Amino acid sequence: MQTVAVYLDYLCPFAWRGLELAHVVAPHLGLDLDLRHYSLEQGNHPENAGLPRHAPVWKLAEQPLESSRSLRAFLASHAARQQGRAAHLRFALELFRLHHPEKRDLGNDETFVDAVSRAVLDLERFMADLEDEEARRHELARDLEAAAELGVFGTPTFVLPSGDAACFRFTQLTTEPELAVHLWELFTAVLHNGAHIETIKRPP
Amino acid sequence: MQTVAVYLDYLCPFAWRGLELAHVVAPHLGLDLDLRHYSLEQGNHPENAGLPRHAPVWKLAEQPLESSRSLRAFLASHAARQQGRAAHLRFALELFRLHHPEKRDLGNDETFVDAVSRAVLDLERFMADLEDEEARRHELARDLEAAAELGVFGTPTFVLPSGDAACFRFTQLTTEPELAVHLWELFTAVLHNGAHIETIKRPP
Repeated sequence: MQTVAVYLDYLCPFAWRGLELAHVVAPHLGLDLDLRHYSLEQGNHPENAGLPRHAPVWKLAEQPLESSRSLRAFLASHAARQQGRAAHLRFALELFRLHHPEKRDLGNDETFVDAVSRAVLDLERFMADLEDEEARRHELARDLEAAAELGVFGTPTFVLPSGDAACFRFTQLTTEPELAVHLWELFTAVLHNGAHIETIKRPP
Repeated sequence: MQTVAVYLDYLCPFAWRGLELAHVVAPHLGLDLDLRHYSLEQGNHPENAGLPRHAPVWKLAEQPLESSRSLRAFLASHAARQQGRAAHLRFALELFRLHHPEKRDLGNDETFVDAVSRAVLDLERFMADLEDEEARRHELARDLEAAAELGVFGTPTFVLPSGDAACFRFTQLTTEPELAVHLWELFTAVLHNGAHIETIKRPP
């Protein structure tokens, strides 16, 4: 198994589609997904504008819960991670599905409880881990520091086994296995091409 | 023949490599290249920050020659264009080669004269067209307006026969025909994939 790290923000519909893609291709290509976090709120925060990514002054992990649209979801994600990598992946997929296609609110704990239930996690353990807020905030802070170290600027960002990394955004959900594998191989071919492609980006 | 439009700025080394690539693949794939201009100085100018791309207040085509690092090169490019699309392409390639690998100054008319000579253009006609500065500025202004209309934000941006457009940047010059065709086909496969890929971008 080769590991692909995936930097996610639950607010981001591209991250939802990217994780669905990675989830479909992983068993076909022998990939193990390691979910990590990058915060769009922190990355795009006006108080951090112009600062190096590794030295923000507005840090999501230190904010009050009610001031952020994403903090509680990140802490829930870290709580789910306590049950192992596979459980974390199932939780993340269900939380993305609840929030994006189903438009459920990330500010409401019921959404997390439903994600836990659908992902078949241990709810009691999840709630206990979520209540240990200080530990989850520490984990989130470390994840966001690692993302900054890597230069992550958007979600989803994938780090391939080769070490090549890129933000990869597409608008059409692609989960049919043959199409999904083809799309993933196109993405990896771009990152592995000898020309060292840095950017392919459509005008907005 | 199918037309590929290429938006360029002579300041940009990615635009140089992109044009070298397009030049190699064009005869193999039956493509006709139509060179156009996008200005990084105008696009990234602090006075234009936050404004819609189609409504800049700092317009390159209205600036005094000595205040810009790229204006004279754009006007020379429009002068070369008067001798036809093929002549324009040869001139642009030679000017890129003079400026990037050979480090020649875009602020010195001798660089343009050398590009004209290497590209086998009519020097007398080129100088007369370059001296008709008002006409060249008008053409540049129209080109930059067309780029803004399309949402171009970086160079090189290619517009494929399908209408799909993207900024495409790579760091390794790729002119060996087989590798070049493979790289171009990878780029077009990304833009034509049914997932509608918007972005593949490495962290900086």
